[in-house]
Amino acid sequence: MSMPICIIVSPVQESADEAIEGRLHLVDSHDPQVPVTDLGVTRGDGIFEVIGVVHGRPLALDAHLRRLANSAAMLDLPALELEAIRAAVLKTIDLDEHREELSVKIVVTRGVEGTGVPICWVLSFQTDDHRAERAEGIKVVLLSRGYPHDIAARAPWLLTGAKTLSYAINKAALREAARRGADDVIFTSTDGYVLEGPSASLIMKFGQRIWTPSTAQGILRGTTQGAAFEVFGRLGFATAEVLVGVDQLAAADAMWLASSTRLLAPVRLLDEHDVPVDHDLTDTVNAALLDTAR
Amino acid sequence: MSMPICIIVSPVQESADEAIEGRLHLVDSHDPQVPVTDLGVTRGDGIFEVIGVVHGRPLALDAHLRRLANSAAMLDLPALELEAIRAAVLKTIDLDEHREELSVKIVVTRGVEGTGVPICWVLSFQTDDHRAERAEGIKVVLLSRGYPHDIAARAPWLLTGAKTLSYAINKAALREAARRGADDVIFTSTDGYVLEGPSASLIMKFGQRIWTPSTAQGILRGTTQGAAFEVFGRLGFATAEVLVGVDQLAAADAMWLASSTRLLAPVRLLDEHDVPVDHDLTDTVNAALLDTAR
Repeated sequence: MSMPICIIVSPVQESADEAIEGRLHLVDSHDPQVPVTDLGVTRGDGIFEVIGVVHGRPLALDAHLRRLANSAAMLDLPALELEAIRAAVLKTIDLDEHREELSVKIVVTRGVEGTGVPICWVLSFQTDDHRAERAEGIKVVLLSRGYPHDIAARAPWLLTGAKTLSYAINKAALREAARRGADDVIFTSTDGYVLEGPSASLIMKFGQRIWTPSTAQGILRGTTQGAAFEVFGRLGFATAEVLVGVDQLAAADAMWLASSTRLLAPVRLLDEHDVPVDHDLTDTVNAALLDTAR
Repeated sequence: MSMPICIIVSPVQESADEAIEGRLHLVDSHDPQVPVTDLGVTRGDGIFEVIGVVHGRPLALDAHLRRLANSAAMLDLPALELEAIRAAVLKTIDLDEHREELSVKIVVTRGVEGTGVPICWVLSFQTDDHRAERAEGIKVVLLSRGYPHDIAARAPWLLTGAKTLSYAINKAALREAARRGADDVIFTSTDGYVLEGPSASLIMKFGQRIWTPSTAQGILRGTTQGAAFEVFGRLGFATAEVLVGVDQLAAADAMWLASSTRLLAPVRLLDEHDVPVDHDLTDTVNAALLDTAR
């Protein structure tokens, strides 16, 4: 197995005439790179993105960079120089011999406490093989996210809708799912709406309509969901971002969790209830998502 | 300024006959020590404690270690060898020339993804001077924590009551307080109860009664609050852990935020409302807390 590629980037522009290339530093990904005083590790105070790479090309890179910038703004981080981060992503892919299929993670932390200087790195890693989940479907449980659906507008300091490094809850929810014999989670609001997975967006099919829960509920704008909606649109479906009640799920005639590396994984069991799986449509959309990288 | 002391500890016992001392490794706190693949930094997936040190002695160390073990259990981390961590804390203090007054942080992360081996370090740092806040009081705003007060029992995967590294929300709440011209925050539940600060416990005085919000609400068991309650008890007050409605705060005749390094900071302004400050009682309790370290 080859070594993951790690490039450290200074993510905030310091002078206009400094070449981007000179600000990317290839480091040994097995050596420690983060100080014990970095707020990323002491407070989960930072943001991230994970990007699928197929045939050497990053999927939905623009959407990931836009979301990274949005997360930075929500956390009051300095404005990021996205072109430097983009260059680091492309160089990471270029240097990784598994570039035919891999994943790339971007991490930006607030940096060492007191410095006000964020740090950023881009890291490649090998993507797990998700073909079985795409083909056979996954078992999902509904778990409360604890918030009412309209919390984002009322309490922006809760950072719902930002992709922060404070993901301990997301990992705990996945452990709870495993305890219940399931593979993944759909979070629900305390007032009965469906939200998103711990690391995936929810997509539902009702006849010719394709829905995803509204991001006004303080959930992430899904990059893979966005790319999939373009495909669904081309296939003649009417796509929309809506409020969906938990009680509406029983009427869905297909349901997927969409994420950057697993793409669309059909839900085949929701709590104790079978969910119809549309294998053909799943394959068609996933093939189209992979094809956009060509 | 001298260098902070950092000791890396292997926090899970591997063999019964290995001496603790051999498992403590003094490292350079300015060198990077954390891999970019450590779940502490990639997911805020870990736990921490901050311990005040006065006259070379850690305040409420047993209570901090108990809470660390409790947080570990809530996160399904392996059982920690608390005696090794205790030894690291004491050695860190011993090696730091500012041991007369400093703070010590314990961090335990889930470790590098896929290894299942948690990592732990203990780090000393100089305590900010909090004398002005103790003497003059602080300005506090009420901010919603977004959860109903009984969320902990209903949704343990939300990890309320665990002191995790996923603290981005706590930092964002403090930035919101600063935007409102305040120093600190008291979180409230969506159904109208008061909870805790982002890094402090709330203590309220109503005549001869001293109350703190019940930990059944998924808030941290305050180590400093616990020590302060012993002092209040000796002073003749009746202490209790209770559910307190936001509307009851107006009747309090004193209020404090209690934390390991700032100790009891009296609240002098809550949103737009003046709060009575009991300077004598504040000084008495803080002096007693500092004295327990002698």
